[in-house]
Amino acid sequence: MRARNLAVVLGEIRRSGPLTRAALADLTGLTKTTVSKLVSDLLEAGAVVETGAVRDGERGRPGVAIALSGHRVATLGLEINVDYLAASVVDLTLAVRVRRTRPADNRNSRPETILRELRDLARWAVSEAEAQGLRVTGAALAVPGPVEGGLLHNAPHLGWRDVRVTGLLDLLDLPFEVDNEANLAALGELWFGSGATDFLYVSGEIGIGAGLVVGGALFRGTNGQAGELGHVVVLPDGPACRCGGRGCLEVYAGQDALLGAVAPLSGRVAALPGAAAGMPAPAASLEGLAGLLEAGDPVARAACEEAGRALGTALTSAVHLLDPGMIVLGGSFALLFPWLERPVGDVLSARLRHMRGKPPRLVASQAGADAAVLGAAGLIIQQVVADPAGTLGL
Amino acid sequence: MRARNLAVVLGEIRRSGPLTRAALADLTGLTKTTVSKLVSDLLEAGAVVETGAVRDGERGRPGVAIALSGHRVATLGLEINVDYLAASVVDLTLAVRVRRTRPADNRNSRPETILRELRDLARWAVSEAEAQGLRVTGAALAVPGPVEGGLLHNAPHLGWRDVRVTGLLDLLDLPFEVDNEANLAALGELWFGSGATDFLYVSGEIGIGAGLVVGGALFRGTNGQAGELGHVVVLPDGPACRCGGRGCLEVYAGQDALLGAVAPLSGRVAALPGAAAGMPAPAASLEGLAGLLEAGDPVARAACEEAGRALGTALTSAVHLLDPGMIVLGGSFALLFPWLERPVGDVLSARLRHMRGKPPRLVASQAGADAAVLGAAGLIIQQVVADPAGTLGL
Repeated sequence: MRARNLAVVLGEIRRSGPLTRAALADLTGLTKTTVSKLVSDLLEAGAVVETGAVRDGERGRPGVAIALSGHRVATLGLEINVDYLAASVVDLTLAVRVRRTRPADNRNSRPETILRELRDLARWAVSEAEAQGLRVTGAALAVPGPVEGGLLHNAPHLGWRDVRVTGLLDLLDLPFEVDNEANLAALGELWFGSGATDFLYVSGEIGIGAGLVVGGALFRGTNGQAGELGHVVVLPDGPACRCGGRGCLEVYAGQDALLGAVAPLSGRVAALPGAAAGMPAPAASLEGLAGLLEAGDPVARAACEEAGRALGTALTSAVHLLDPGMIVLGGSFALLFPWLERPVGDVLSARLRHMRGKPPRLVASQAGADAAVLGAAGLIIQQVVADPAGTLGL
Repeated sequence: MRARNLAVVLGEIRRSGPLTRAALADLTGLTKTTVSKLVSDLLEAGAVVETGAVRDGERGRPGVAIALSGHRVATLGLEINVDYLAASVVDLTLAVRVRRTRPADNRNSRPETILRELRDLARWAVSEAEAQGLRVTGAALAVPGPVEGGLLHNAPHLGWRDVRVTGLLDLLDLPFEVDNEANLAALGELWFGSGATDFLYVSGEIGIGAGLVVGGALFRGTNGQAGELGHVVVLPDGPACRCGGRGCLEVYAGQDALLGAVAPLSGRVAALPGAAAGMPAPAASLEGLAGLLEAGDPVARAACEEAGRALGTALTSAVHLLDPGMIVLGGSFALLFPWLERPVGDVLSARLRHMRGKPPRLVASQAGADAAVLGAAGLIIQQVVADPAGTLGL
């Protein structure tokens, strides 16, 4: 009962705070004595702070207000992706306190090696947070593949199969969750992006995933494996995909496909205005590709057009099945948005406008490249607010 | 408060009944006096009945138990489909009390005409129910297309666009809901089928739709338009579809596609064992097609194989995006299940087995052809149980 009431009070403070104790009693239906006791426990745990006096709407006289505290409770977000490791620490107010991305080549890597490096990065982030007076209460890890009960089934771009990730990270001594990168990036967009609460977040990395947010909640499917947009079928007999299928979206619009299509151009970028002489194969990076696109290179534009049309085809199927409120292009697709918007939008409009009033709006992500690692930290913050007694040992 | 408690008590009786008043007080946390008063109101409204004495687990002595009543409260399910109208009445215990399907050719029909016929059918069903002592408290209508706030956007096979269905049925003088046929058929499978609570129900009618049930609840998407499996893209440059797209699943596996592929065979069925001489174009019906398939006709089998492979391709995309616990083939796909199971299963297995442990199980619907019209009535029963005060005027 007390645990439930702590969650009710903290949830109300998060949703509507700062609030006086009297206002909290009104909103929760708890007695003022109970509220005062609970607030006192939350103050002691560092989950809330007293702010200056505010007017109490109900009674018309000023009182001391209670707000979420950013001074003590924090959570750790981690990410393993194909070409980097990342860590972030977020406090209870969702302010980002620590973040670092470490470039890495994790293709066909040994899980033990990568997880050891990740553990070092995590320890560094925790000690940085502690130096700011924060206590990290839990962590979540984003991985590029479907996860079920801590088991990463298959991350084809890492070359990992059936890796039990949780066990390998137990040494961190923190309550620990693992989830799909796209799910966590969608939550990152929800909490650290535009403020929209209904959208399909499309994560364009080496692989392509998606996370559906409906009414501010992530849709996970029956086994937590929904949103694998990268393996939606674009052309049944198309080129082989690493997943074992053929003609999946990733084959046409994954980062390797995009960069591969412009690989013969790598040398040409050196001739672009502002390019330094002797730059190594610049189109082999997304930034190089963006440079070619900005310069109006026709091969680069055609590659982006083809990827955009494939993405539009897969998103047509996704809109029919998931009915998202909006489509948010994230990761590399956010960087390439100016060149993807028209081909993707054209396909969506042509295929959807007769069945539905109009296709969902198409926008670029506002959470940026850190969406997944921030969403991971935010997920644990959400768990703290939902159960302060259990997570903070109250 | 009383309204909420009535819902708590009725919900507990539905979930765990029959229950004594003492057991209800234990389960709900309400006082025995409050429970007795609420039960007395529910008895008066005909929502519950007293059954014989049962042993009360907590106290070890027998008491009079309370169960849902099938004697008074009932709801009406209606369905407009391309080739029939249907009505059903279901009582509070989900027993089917009235059902009728009236064949009709509703292609390119005027909404006013069809809705007038439907109103007559509905009135007949209500009077049949009343003759059994039932009171119909609300109704729901299944339509073959996406619905938003009572507005049917587009039912290409009916030839209807932007039809406000609710207004035209107001004359029934009943609280009224309209929903997509596939959503309601999925609920029909949930409540009147196998008892599974996690599945994607695939509705094979003239059009193809789907309804996803996760943990016993229907997933509707942001605007209630999720599950349009029929317009998932199978081949981007395939034949034109009535939805305005190309190469949608319906073009390959809709009823018209299946029957069209075997149309030249119509005459041959007369030669099959047991067929009467001079039968009119029997393969132009699903039963005729099933007859050809049973007789091992190679053209019919090839048509079913092709439809099955297209269905497997679209379902691959659906599994990646929705992560269903199981796939239930309903409507005409249930009838054709013996010939669809292998091609659909082969495609799912080939494309999914590397990414996921194994593809979801594929089964035939157990709710039968009435799934949608029963689901419609069941939806309103669910609303009665969720809010007996509001729906029964308590």
